[in-house]
Amino acid sequence: MSARNLQEVLDASGNTVDLLRNSQVGAYVYPVVASEFTNWRSEVRAWRDTAVLFDQSHHMDNLFIKGPDALRLISDTAINSVAQFPVNRAKQYVPTTPSGHVIGDGILFHEAEDEFVYVGRSPAANWLLFHGETGGYDVEVAVDRRSPSRPMGKPVSRRYWRLQIQGPNAWPIIEKLNGGPVEQLKFFSMDYLTVAGERVRTLRHGMAGAPGLELWGPYGSYDKVRDAILEAGQEFGMLAVGARAYSSNTLESGWIPSPLPAVYSGEELRSYREWLGADSYEATNAVAGSFVSDRIEDYYLTPWELGYGSFVKFDHDFIGREALEKIDPATQRRKVTLAWNAEDMTRIFASLFDPGSEGYKYFDLPNANYGSSNYDSILDDAGNTVGVSLFTGYSANEKRALSLATVDPNIELGTEVRVVWGEPDGGTRKTTVEPHRQLEVRAVVSPAPYSVTARKEYRAGWRTAQAI
Amino acid sequence: MSARNLQEVLDASGNTVDLLRNSQVGAYVYPVVASEFTNWRSEVRAWRDTAVLFDQSHHMDNLFIKGPDALRLISDTAINSVAQFPVNRAKQYVPTTPSGHVIGDGILFHEAEDEFVYVGRSPAANWLLFHGETGGYDVEVAVDRRSPSRPMGKPVSRRYWRLQIQGPNAWPIIEKLNGGPVEQLKFFSMDYLTVAGERVRTLRHGMAGAPGLELWGPYGSYDKVRDAILEAGQEFGMLAVGARAYSSNTLESGWIPSPLPAVYSGEELRSYREWLGADSYEATNAVAGSFVSDRIEDYYLTPWELGYGSFVKFDHDFIGREALEKIDPATQRRKVTLAWNAEDMTRIFASLFDPGSEGYKYFDLPNANYGSSNYDSILDDAGNTVGVSLFTGYSANEKRALSLATVDPNIELGTEVRVVWGEPDGGTRKTTVEPHRQLEVRAVVSPAPYSVTARKEYRAGWRTAQAI
Repeated sequence: MSARNLQEVLDASGNTVDLLRNSQVGAYVYPVVASEFTNWRSEVRAWRDTAVLFDQSHHMDNLFIKGPDALRLISDTAINSVAQFPVNRAKQYVPTTPSGHVIGDGILFHEAEDEFVYVGRSPAANWLLFHGETGGYDVEVAVDRRSPSRPMGKPVSRRYWRLQIQGPNAWPIIEKLNGGPVEQLKFFSMDYLTVAGERVRTLRHGMAGAPGLELWGPYGSYDKVRDAILEAGQEFGMLAVGARAYSSNTLESGWIPSPLPAVYSGEELRSYREWLGADSYEATNAVAGSFVSDRIEDYYLTPWELGYGSFVKFDHDFIGREALEKIDPATQRRKVTLAWNAEDMTRIFASLFDPGSEGYKYFDLPNANYGSSNYDSILDDAGNTVGVSLFTGYSANEKRALSLATVDPNIELGTEVRVVWGEPDGGTRKTTVEPHRQLEVRAVVSPAPYSVTARKEYRAGWRTAQAI
Repeated sequence: MSARNLQEVLDASGNTVDLLRNSQVGAYVYPVVASEFTNWRSEVRAWRDTAVLFDQSHHMDNLFIKGPDALRLISDTAINSVAQFPVNRAKQYVPTTPSGHVIGDGILFHEAEDEFVYVGRSPAANWLLFHGETGGYDVEVAVDRRSPSRPMGKPVSRRYWRLQIQGPNAWPIIEKLNGGPVEQLKFFSMDYLTVAGERVRTLRHGMAGAPGLELWGPYGSYDKVRDAILEAGQEFGMLAVGARAYSSNTLESGWIPSPLPAVYSGEELRSYREWLGADSYEATNAVAGSFVSDRIEDYYLTPWELGYGSFVKFDHDFIGREALEKIDPATQRRKVTLAWNAEDMTRIFASLFDPGSEGYKYFDLPNANYGSSNYDSILDDAGNTVGVSLFTGYSANEKRALSLATVDPNIELGTEVRVVWGEPDGGTRKTTVEPHRQLEVRAVVSPAPYSVTARKEYRAGWRTAQAI
């Protein structure tokens, strides 16, 4: 009989790490949005030099939470304090397991009294959905899943479109659309804007030190609003960012999109695993990279390791609190950017043109990740594993391969480490993996965010928390 | 007033070469089909090692020609003889201008008495459509244009789906689908096959010496037939080929997809240019590469230069015959493959990781073309232009960058030439072009198709053999 839920999938496989490392789900795709509108190099440079339109309409789950217990559901599952969470504010929501390990993260928008929308990957959406359905809360919870990875010409729709206007010229474009000045609210404050006659909601955002806005509205107005923004942006050098360039922005800004949800073990999570489908993100999730451990728990990460230490607030009860209270933050790995060595990167590419030997793992540009969750070993001079590299790619602004990583607290900025690029033994059976050999790539431990402006200008609590 | 047709577009621009080199149409995309199903390296290797499913449903125009004068329309416009063109045969159709230059090419399927379907890029479709509509022929001509390049979640449909089963394991898969032996007709002969209960049409095709089939049918049966083929192919290692890998197959097989249609000059083509829309392929076509001449005629190619010399048959009257009769084939450039130098390719990629200087033009993998028509200068030792390189990319089978080119008749196989990679003066304004500098890449003049050579090299000892 085929498995009906995650627990049965795990029971049938017998080895969770092998199962996830050999997932057949394919690449974690940024779907529907065109791969390139102009070309990915120019699109990447535009967010630092002029302005861009990010299209986030398709790659994230949206979870709609409504009811008198909505805030309590959030509070009970978030490491974050909800003491200050009025309507028209947003928060980066981070839930943990009873063992204090991160399940996922995403943005919670407080859209109206007792109404929240979670936007992000599936793991945190599923966790909220599970507790909303089974925890005795007086809430309605409904999920609008991310769009299909390969629509192949089939129509795609969402409840909301979601766009961001970002870059140094973002604000003049926003004011042109508005036909007059727009007040720059505090970061992560929400408001409204009229675009092409449509009243749309906004979130004050920003990038590389310049204020920007995230905008959303009902999917039916998508074309109209998008066209109006691009038309207004033309004189300011705005480029639409395609799916290929999009994900590399986080290499500069320092958010790690893809921790493994820490839900595969622990008796207290069995009912959750029995609730999660056999086709859920958690059951099909592809783990990629050189870091291999028999114990799935070795892939779990604490809030501090992902840079969310400052979010942990013991002003409320929440799942995982007891475990987190026992942790001394000083013992925790911390988030860094790794700046990969140019010569070693060149070796990776040179191997493409060497018919005489097996190549290194292909490093796709600008997003080099080949799983939903990516774990590459980081070695020190003595060959000890001193961290894991979690999201890898190339910044056309920095002209460097970069990765976001978490490293032992004694590893100082400026240290040269080695990232093991590629999987052992010629590679796993994942569909994204061609036969290859491994290469130890030198990399310099650098701050996160790597981008100097992002580091200086982003507000505390968003991406910069725990930056070093 | 904005231009209403190609002639007006040209008149307004004043310089055809500048216009086309700075087209804003964007990349020539292989649309709708997913970028990668597994990964492009494995998909490319599968067509040589196991089996693949090519999906050609979306990137080509289909032109339906029906009526008592259908064959006469074809005969009057084709360099090819139609003396032997019975129902259930296909031909590679090549029309030329009165000056004997190629307009385009594609496959003509003789589907029924007085019924033909042309499948290929727009230029030859437009030429047939124009003459069918204006030439006094008793025919009905209808075009089903290629799918949109960036559907962005909108539904896409075609009149036909079109798939190919190719590779060394193709025939066992075809016979499994058929539930018994399938006769291997002659190359380019047509027949029928029943797949998943659907009677579909077939064209005997082949690749790398192994027989294969092209299959097509009404678009409504697309999912059902495609699913059945992939299911049957699974035990034979069949992979679906995505849009990213697809176009690199021609680097191995030697067909040049993208000559510039030779329709921009000549008073005798004025009425055609007035008929072609201001948004036609011809009016928006992006010319890319290092070869720059003031004269658009320098971009035109004769049948011999594209390897179609053997198609030229003076057994019938056709547009261009008089001009072609005056040409001595021995004076013509000829089609070759260029095997690009591995060290120079590595320099191109190394420049991505050098923040201190402007990079070389990005070489995308496996399709490196950045226009609809690509023209890179080929230089000899003395710096003379001895040909143009017309379609460039990377073969994951050969582990080489390759291009299809046409070179002077005195350039022998084995000669080392230099291809100028990138555009002069930092690059044009095409949307696919980021600022860059040029690099002269060494390349060895090799046969077309290249893959035949590769098979010989394997026997001789593939690690050491020269690519000539």
